[in-house]
Amino acid sequence: QTKFEQIKSNKAFEIFVISVIVASALLIGVKTYPLPQSVHQLTLIMDYFITIFFLIEITIRFIADTNKKRFFHNFWNCFDSLIVLISLVPVDNSDMAVVGRLIRVFRVLRMVSIIPELRILLTSLVKALPQLGYVMLLMFIIFYIYAAIGSTLFHAINPVLWGDITIALLTLFRVMTFEDWTDVMYETMEVYPLSWIYYLTFIFLSAFAFLNMVIGIVVSVMEQ
Amino acid sequence: QTKFEQIKSNKAFEIFVISVIVASALLIGVKTYPLPQSVHQLTLIMDYFITIFFLIEITIRFIADTNKKRFFHNFWNCFDSLIVLISLVPVDNSDMAVVGRLIRVFRVLRMVSIIPELRILLTSLVKALPQLGYVMLLMFIIFYIYAAIGSTLFHAINPVLWGDITIALLTLFRVMTFEDWTDVMYETMEVYPLSWIYYLTFIFLSAFAFLNMVIGIVVSVMEQ
Amino acid sequence: QTKFEQIKSNKAFEIFVISVIVASALLIGVKTYPLPQSVHQLTLIMDYFITIFFLIEITIRFIADTNKKRFFHNFWNCFDSLIVLISLVPVDNSDMAVVGRLIRVFRVLRMVSIIPELRILLTSLVKALPQLGYVMLLMFIIFYIYAAIGSTLFHAINPVLWGDITIALLTLFRVMTFEDWTDVMYETMEVYPLSWIYYLTFIFLSAFAFLNMVIGIVVSVMEQ
Amino acid sequence: QTKFEQIKSNKAFEIFVISVIVASALLIGVKTYPLPQSVHQLTLIMDYFITIFFLIEITIRFIADTNKKRFFHNFWNCFDSLIVLISLVPVDNSDMAVVGRLIRVFRVLRMVSIIPELRILLTSLVKALPQLGYVMLLMFIIFYIYAAIGSTLFHAINPVLWGDITIALLTLFRVMTFEDWTDVMYETMEVYPLSWIYYLTFIFLSAFAFLNMVIGIVVSVMEQ
Ligand code: NA
Ligand code: NA
Repeated sequence: QTKFEQIKSNKAFEIFVISVIVASALLIGVKTYPLPQSVHQLTLIMDYFITIFFLIEITIRFIADTNKKRFFHNFWNCFDSLIVLISLVPVDNSDMAVVGRLIRVFRVLRMVSIIPELRILLTSLVKALPQLGYVMLLMFIIFYIYAAIGSTLFHAINPVLWGDITIALLTLFRVMTFEDWTDVMYETMEVYPLSWIYYLTFIFLSAFAFLNMVIGIVVSVMEQ
Repeated sequence: QTKFEQIKSNKAFEIFVISVIVASALLIGVKTYPLPQSVHQLTLIMDYFITIFFLIEITIRFIADTNKKRFFHNFWNCFDSLIVLISLVPVDNSDMAVVGRLIRVFRVLRMVSIIPELRILLTSLVKALPQLGYVMLLMFIIFYIYAAIGSTLFHAINPVLWGDITIALLTLFRVMTFEDWTDVMYETMEVYPLSWIYYLTFIFLSAFAFLNMVIGIVVSVMEQ
Repeated sequence: QTKFEQIKSNKAFEIFVISVIVASALLIGVKTYPLPQSVHQLTLIMDYFITIFFLIEITIRFIADTNKKRFFHNFWNCFDSLIVLISLVPVDNSDMAVVGRLIRVFRVLRMVSIIPELRILLTSLVKALPQLGYVMLLMFIIFYIYAAIGSTLFHAINPVLWGDITIALLTLFRVMTFEDWTDVMYETMEVYPLSWIYYLTFIFLSAFAFLNMVIGIVVSVMEQ
Repeated sequence: QTKFEQIKSNKAFEIFVISVIVASALLIGVKTYPLPQSVHQLTLIMDYFITIFFLIEITIRFIADTNKKRFFHNFWNCFDSLIVLISLVPVDNSDMAVVGRLIRVFRVLRMVSIIPELRILLTSLVKALPQLGYVMLLMFIIFYIYAAIGSTLFHAINPVLWGDITIALLTLFRVMTFEDWTDVMYETMEVYPLSWIYYLTFIFLSAFAFLNMVIGIVVSVMEQ
């Protein structure tokens, strides 16, 4: 066990692990380009090597851990194990090939688990979320009410944008990002000339709620 | 009276009330989808049930209150009563059906009145508004002057965008959100090649006023 | 003189002055709508009345002032006098009618000079500007360098967007507001496939400078 | 040497240097306009003069420096020398003429090195960057994973936007700036109706990371 611990704590080993993760990320990028058959074969071989290496690495870390039970109480150990396990599932037939490639993409996330600074950063980001809970609930209520009104009134004008409440929610998110929102407005103003009130009140309310969300984060970060 | 107070303070009753509000919100969402006749009938029955339940709930709260006079001094009690009363108005003929559905949408706002944290959040948001009063007045003056200039100069170029001062105000709000603002500008630049000055000064002035509004909120929140 | 001072300090007189300013603002708005001949005549008469009233009001304030010399050392007195004087210039022939209407628009600015809170707000906004001097100079240097590069390289691709350095500066401002910036980029990428580097570095540099400008304002406001 | 030091410290000389830099910047701007042959000849002569003047100026500063070795340890001295040296390279044939003009554009950057306030500002901006290192790495990981997924899934739908991982990264940056992002989304939603999840999660994650970057800068500036 001490031997495994030595390997685990070895600086050279750590750098090698990061190199393999970076290599696996580059491999995923390379695969999106059209490749000659020989290079394609090479990427498949490298894929196998990376899968096996990740399996060995997690095994070493598991054996090196003095307390086996506690190993899976650590979020990042579970996270790494899950990514490794999923990429072990064989996906060979053409239909599943895309799924297999998508699963391998998540290996890039191991970059987060291996670099302590990124782990700390992500933890602090996630910790900031619950403080935003009620502002986000308020925002969702605003979105829901406007989506309900929108799909009730504008349903017949453009079903692609206002067909049902789910589509209306997506359209409202589009309006909130100011993406061609006047096109959406001008269309409904032809039937309801006063519908600009709907859009302007929505923009003001959602912008005001969003601003409060941002300020909420700023204040909570300042206090730390 | 003590019995009603017991019901009102009962944790299970409170959760049931929230459940009914959530159900009424989901009901509104479901109605925006095309529904078979049988499900449509069901939604109407549920609508009646929710209306009656809300009436009973507000009655219980009113009876449970020791000081009847003070009951309507509370903003949220008035708010809830108003929503319940409005949804009692019968709207059956086809023309008013849409109005009836819109009124029921506002029941979702009861989510705000029932959850204390949302009530506090909304109160603090509204309290921040009067501090913004003068910046908003200044912003309106900027908008009004530019709208007056715009509809005077560009009226003949595109009446849909600059026809009168109301439409010009809407167009300026569009420019402020950067929504295809260059299309608006390029159009007037064909007649007045220097009209880019109009748009750029407007963007700078309104962005500067908006920035001050945001900073105003941040500072006032920080001070609390 | 004491009589004039009494008029000037009279609360009712002050409210009347604000009412006339608001009326003159509304009058400007009304004129942007198509009006029947009779109403048009009425607006002309009201215009004369407002012009004369403003002249009387500034005269009263001038006479009421104990120190005549100091009167024009006050920025807002000069500002008001200028607005009143300009609107006295007769503009009757059709060519100048638009100019005359534009000049009257600036009367709305008297709202700022008459309300003390707006005067204070504007003063504090203007005071924040010099602190931004160097960031704005840096931003202009970034814009100038990119505009020079852009109009040198992309001149032949689209002269409407990159014809000379002035037009290129306007195009870069458009890119900075993210207004259909990808259309601009895709066009030049057909000739120079690597020109996305030009746009991305520009966006990053200008966004970074802008962010520093905003933070500069926030910090300077916080310190007050 | 003392004579050179006197010239270097001379206020009039400093103002003259700034004037020449401003003149060289204006010259670059003027060249982007179509010019008659005579004026074009003049700009070439001025170019030669400015090149020689910059060479003399840097030589004076070098001779005036008591410690010759330390001269090139100063970043801004190296920066100025490099700009002067590069613009000495003769570029006469038509193919290289554009390159020659682009190189001269960078002379405008001497404005930054000559004005101490801009130098300080830039130094403080650059100092803020390393603190952002890990947030930027996290952001790049988010971009990379989404680009890999995007080019794997949407490759066949629109190769212009999702052809390979580099193009997909550019498309994602476009989505992040909200530039016609719904057009990109609606296109893929026709094949994968649930692909709005891809865009919305990307927008939320990248906006959240960006917000943290901004807050990081604000906090670090506040602490100084
Ligand atoms: Na936009
Ligand atoms: Na757009």
